[in-house]
Amino acid sequence: MEGFPTLVSFEESRRKLAEIIKYRIVETIEVTLEDALNMVCAEGVHAPMDLPEFDRSAVDGYAAVAEDTFGSSPNNPVELKLVGKACAGMNPSDIPRVSRGEAVEIYTGAPLPDGANAVVMVEHTNKLGDFVEVLYPVSPYQNVSKKGEDYKKGDLVIKKGTRIRPWHIGALAALNIPKVKVLRKPRVAVLSTGSELVEVGSELKVGSVVNSSKPLLKTLLKEIGCEVLDLGTIPDDLESIKESIQNGLKMADAIVVTGGTSVGELDLVPDAINSLGKPGLVVHGIMMRPAKPTGFGMIDGKPVFMLSGLPVAALIGFQNFVKSSIQMMLGLPEEPKLTIRGKLTRRVANPHGVRSFIRVKVIRQGDAYYVEPLMLTGSGLISTLTKANGMLIVPEDIEGYDEGEEVEVELFQPIEAAT
Amino acid sequence: MEGFPTLVSFEESRRKLAEIIKYRIVETIEVTLEDALNMVCAEGVHAPMDLPEFDRSAVDGYAAVAEDTFGSSPNNPVELKLVGKACAGMNPSDIPRVSRGEAVEIYTGAPLPDGANAVVMVEHTNKLGDFVEVLYPVSPYQNVSKKGEDYKKGDLVIKKGTRIRPWHIGALAALNIPKVKVLRKPRVAVLSTGSELVEVGSELKVGSVVNSSKPLLKTLLKEIGCEVLDLGTIPDDLESIKESIQNGLKMADAIVVTGGTSVGELDLVPDAINSLGKPGLVVHGIMMRPAKPTGFGMIDGKPVFMLSGLPVAALIGFQNFVKSSIQMMLGLPEEPKLTIRGKLTRRVANPHGVRSFIRVKVIRQGDAYYVEPLMLTGSGLISTLTKANGMLIVPEDIEGYDEGEEVEVELFQPIEAAT
Repeated sequence: MEGFPTLVSFEESRRKLAEIIKYRIVETIEVTLEDALNMVCAEGVHAPMDLPEFDRSAVDGYAAVAEDTFGSSPNNPVELKLVGKACAGMNPSDIPRVSRGEAVEIYTGAPLPDGANAVVMVEHTNKLGDFVEVLYPVSPYQNVSKKGEDYKKGDLVIKKGTRIRPWHIGALAALNIPKVKVLRKPRVAVLSTGSELVEVGSELKVGSVVNSSKPLLKTLLKEIGCEVLDLGTIPDDLESIKESIQNGLKMADAIVVTGGTSVGELDLVPDAINSLGKPGLVVHGIMMRPAKPTGFGMIDGKPVFMLSGLPVAALIGFQNFVKSSIQMMLGLPEEPKLTIRGKLTRRVANPHGVRSFIRVKVIRQGDAYYVEPLMLTGSGLISTLTKANGMLIVPEDIEGYDEGEEVEVELFQPIEAAT
Repeated sequence: MEGFPTLVSFEESRRKLAEIIKYRIVETIEVTLEDALNMVCAEGVHAPMDLPEFDRSAVDGYAAVAEDTFGSSPNNPVELKLVGKACAGMNPSDIPRVSRGEAVEIYTGAPLPDGANAVVMVEHTNKLGDFVEVLYPVSPYQNVSKKGEDYKKGDLVIKKGTRIRPWHIGALAALNIPKVKVLRKPRVAVLSTGSELVEVGSELKVGSVVNSSKPLLKTLLKEIGCEVLDLGTIPDDLESIKESIQNGLKMADAIVVTGGTSVGELDLVPDAINSLGKPGLVVHGIMMRPAKPTGFGMIDGKPVFMLSGLPVAALIGFQNFVKSSIQMMLGLPEEPKLTIRGKLTRRVANPHGVRSFIRVKVIRQGDAYYVEPLMLTGSGLISTLTKANGMLIVPEDIEGYDEGEEVEVELFQPIEAAT
């Protein structure tokens, strides 16, 4: 039993991560728009046509020649002869042409009649039998959605490597693109090790502990768009661990192993990983708290992550290393984080060189926000997550924050969800 | 054809919304932990047992009587006799008792042997055959995870009305709770009206327009945890609209209708809603841009929403009214919004009394953020969403913001996703 041979700084570990994760998901599948939600666009999508495809009215009113309306006013309206009606969905060839002195009654979305170059909104007119009085002038193309004003044929609609969101789906639909090429989901295998561990719902014997990190990690992975392979919970036995990891590597793009990640006699995961392929573990032991025993590396080109079996440390290891790697594998940018600023209700200290992840409870009092740090010890205490709503990250060069100091906190759930 | 009879302010419309949405999802279902992700907890969950269930070691080391280690130092170590070994998962009755002058070799997660009250971490010891030298003292319960220190039996683990997140699932697992009662998903029916509309993937005739708002809204609804019923796309015909809404009301908790929401001759949705039950439309026409023709009301106790057929207006109507209502129906708090501050690259103006939702492109230059407003007109231009990454909301009492002014923007996708 001994300490970590080489603890690396948080920044250094993140640099190494970016350096070694060369694995990329390249296999693409074609999916319908509704199945594309949150998938990653595999190639840039360009507009196959102009949108709108034709000049159309943006309002209900009267299509006319703009020049005919010039100089009109409520006291001096211009009278135009009505020659027909244009409704949305009509074929332009069924709509009468508008000549000087004429107008066509038109509805939102209808094609602009030939000859017309503007629409007077209905609120600025009086209808008088077969004539319409125009009370205010319109300029050319006023109240008209011009052909191609939304997208011109060939315009980039979605960049390659974008996570597809509902408005992308709306844009693809508007352009009559019913399917889109996306990257298939990353497949990530999760293995838990620990002779004391049983699966949730088991009959508990004294001395056993329910595996909470695996359901936590499985749902975290699903949430970022992974397909999860559950490799089960196995005892601290070198051969079983090696066999399970090998099995996982056959099916998955990456493996996450929890437990047995420290440097004790029964911490067998590092040996298992190092014996299975090169380079094996690249980082093991990071100057962060909790989650110091986090590690990662590669086996035959595939990323392998070692996370603490303690749920809070597993979560923090996941968020800082696994999630980033999955995003790299998909070519995605880092996601913006939801933060809030508030005043610390008591001092927090930080050991030099260590990055601390302190669970906090953000409290709203009127317009003011207060940040209450929860118990700092106990990376195993999952209650620090359900009692909290935010995470205060203290960088390695900061000795701590004083009571009353304003700090920025990452909110991970609504303020009211903290118990 | 005429203007809106009564335009209400944005704030007033939000107040009315909160007033009328009395409908609540109360039906509960019991689901496994992994299926509970993002569902809403139907009743407060309390810990059925202490967690940990027994005192356990938080480190690898030696379990001992803390008092025996007092006064020890590297120059004056205390020697303790090894009487056994405690591994994680062992039954406490299989672990030897520790008396004064004795120690048990112990691993992380193992039950603390009877008689011992602390663990000396392995890094602070030397093992010498059947003895261990302790180099530093430990205080009582140092390096021990005490019974109940995470949760005490009866502690509140998840509040009623909380959206279940991965850490809640971890906590439930740790407490050996395999299933949880959640509210069933809200069922929302979506109906599109518009004689010009065809579904995506159709052969396009000149004059027709692809329905983009429906796929947009369906995915927005799915994302907030709704089950979506697609009532199709129908022409502007009063009887068809009434029939479809009635059908939807039989199956769904709420209905969203797009198109035909304005006040023209072919805008039949308001009449359809008002003819189907009381109170009918409560708000129709809101002082916001885009999305002015947004409306909502109730038919026989069920919420009905009228959104513009133009996709951007539909999105903004959805986010400000439909989404909030679904959250009320589930008893959820408003979700915190992801915002960023940056300098405006050009002035934006705002008409008095109107709340404007301006699509912007946030640009990062080094550490500085700039906010570039996209074209302000054209609520129909879905490209303003794919070209943007944020929304600048200008309240009704602000006349605008100057070029160079710092503004807060809601980010709706990563900065890099803007085209």
